[in-house]
Amino acid sequence: MTSETKEARVLDAIRERRELVNAAIDEELPVQDPERLYEATRYILEAGGKRLRPTVTTLAAEAVAGTEPMGADFRAFPSLDGDEVDVMRAAVAIEVIQSFTLIHDDIMDEDDLRRGVPAVHIEYDEEAAILAGDTLYSKAFEMLSDTGARPEHEVEAVHRLASTCTRICEGQSLDVAYENRTDVSPEEYLEMVRLKTAVLFGASAAIPASLMGADQAVIEGVYQYGTDVGRAFQIQDDLLDLTTPSEQLGKQRGSDLVEGKETMVTLHARQQGVDVDNLVEADDPANVTEAAIEDAVGVLEAAGSIQFARERAQELAEQGRSDLTTLPDNEPRQLLDDLAEYLIARSY
Amino acid sequence: MTSETKEARVLDAIRERRELVNAAIDEELPVQDPERLYEATRYILEAGGKRLRPTVTTLAAEAVAGTEPMGADFRAFPSLDGDEVDVMRAAVAIEVIQSFTLIHDDIMDEDDLRRGVPAVHIEYDEEAAILAGDTLYSKAFEMLSDTGARPEHEVEAVHRLASTCTRICEGQSLDVAYENRTDVSPEEYLEMVRLKTAVLFGASAAIPASLMGADQAVIEGVYQYGTDVGRAFQIQDDLLDLTTPSEQLGKQRGSDLVEGKETMVTLHARQQGVDVDNLVEADDPANVTEAAIEDAVGVLEAAGSIQFARERAQELAEQGRSDLTTLPDNEPRQLLDDLAEYLIARSY
Repeated sequence: MTSETKEARVLDAIRERRELVNAAIDEELPVQDPERLYEATRYILEAGGKRLRPTVTTLAAEAVAGTEPMGADFRAFPSLDGDEVDVMRAAVAIEVIQSFTLIHDDIMDEDDLRRGVPAVHIEYDEEAAILAGDTLYSKAFEMLSDTGARPEHEVEAVHRLASTCTRICEGQSLDVAYENRTDVSPEEYLEMVRLKTAVLFGASAAIPASLMGADQAVIEGVYQYGTDVGRAFQIQDDLLDLTTPSEQLGKQRGSDLVEGKETMVTLHARQQGVDVDNLVEADDPANVTEAAIEDAVGVLEAAGSIQFARERAQELAEQGRSDLTTLPDNEPRQLLDDLAEYLIARSY
Repeated sequence: MTSETKEARVLDAIRERRELVNAAIDEELPVQDPERLYEATRYILEAGGKRLRPTVTTLAAEAVAGTEPMGADFRAFPSLDGDEVDVMRAAVAIEVIQSFTLIHDDIMDEDDLRRGVPAVHIEYDEEAAILAGDTLYSKAFEMLSDTGARPEHEVEAVHRLASTCTRICEGQSLDVAYENRTDVSPEEYLEMVRLKTAVLFGASAAIPASLMGADQAVIEGVYQYGTDVGRAFQIQDDLLDLTTPSEQLGKQRGSDLVEGKETMVTLHARQQGVDVDNLVEADDPANVTEAAIEDAVGVLEAAGSIQFARERAQELAEQGRSDLTTLPDNEPRQLLDDLAEYLIARSY
């Protein structure tokens, strides 16, 4: 299969699942009293999002069960025990956790825009944003403790989600701490990314496997897959900020650089002696020229930093693909494999 | 037994359990990397607290099991199934949730003092406070999904804690919304208090009953007990602010009144036509005289509002005591009964 065909298949799989996930969010998180609170919980979820994590959740469930892609009802999915599990509710729980972290991170990082719309603490206010995040947090645990899975599997999944959330907080704490340091190594950065971003991808794959009663080796295999491709995903995000034209990116290219956000690329460049702090003179993405970004990217390329980050992403995606061998060899597993490739090939 | 003896017994029970709970917090929530994050999670827990909720949890476990007060190891507590359950870990989980809500509420309410020390967002900063709360949140679910209870009981307990957290967020949302209204009825206030404060007392009693495999009637009975005495507890808190001398209260008497915080008392007084907004002229507790507070309390007394709130608290405490009849008649149940009485008799 050509890589174009593979990518088209992955994009189809993401799109088909996204529609189901969006419908399930409506069902699982209805706007009820107090309305302003529940509207705030829905706001970022409705503003968009690729639903990559629920895609991983549903594909992992299919790969474990050996069903055809989109061949079984995710709301009553056949587990290995013979019971039916609401895999979709678990997928929504994970997306809801992702949404909670975005809302709280945007307050902490003073980011005023998210998915092209004002962040919750701007559109509503900070109180509402803290509380919307806290509500999504508990709703996710309500959902995950009510999937119809065997209790021993559900407890394992809940414990996984809880420890994942703890890791995410640790990662965010490191991210905040690293803002005041210029000597963060690429290895430290990668560990921060593992905690802040990748473990939730790991949980997205491991939780359906747990719920369905898969063997521990399978659960651990898909968890590793998630943490590997999750890190590759973040490094690719860092690269896209530098290499994708602004119109395609939906925001000013190079904005991480202008805002002084460290990435795998800049941390490598620092180690090579590049004066990263003065690569671009503007300190607001609104006031920077394409030419200035082009020059800065040229310096980073010359230092080998773009290549360095690209290779790390490729290695992690490769590693992720090799983690899949504990799964039965079937079409959903192939899609997880293709997804790993897509995450580092995507251009937005 | 005289009421003095009863109160002494209750105070003993709280003190004995508090020591065990504080030791268990050290074990369950060690300071680890990133240290600043975990120190922030411990900060309010270490600043004090009566540990009333863990007292309810451990007493409810004893009442269900029929063990002597302090007669069995809470870390390996005999369940009705014959298994051993870590009731203490569940008690710590509930105290940890309480602590998370205090930290986030203090940011939202811009309260700079808590338990006599600066709030977390003052002592650290707001980022650290949001993140410390989020970390406590997930740690509580990690703990509650690892008690050794039968999985079906643990799932029930986790689901109870999650839906309780959702209710707490709804209650806080109403509390914030009510700040902009002067026509809140005592009934609406009581419902807000049920959500914001009382359901966690309910969960404190119901969760150990679930974990131990008690009948649904027992679980519901002790849940009702908790939500009733939790509401009585909050009304008593409101009353103490008006009736307890400042030196005993540890803060300026009447500070709720000065800060314009509505309570059962002021909402009743508004219904009686009292001009609550102008009861005291100062708008800072630091600038108010005892005489001004004394006059304001006199007006509230004349309107029957102090008496009204006191009667509501008494009714709820009575109701709570009557909810205990689903439990076997034993000494821990008697202590829960005495605790209900104590919560509205206490003077601080």
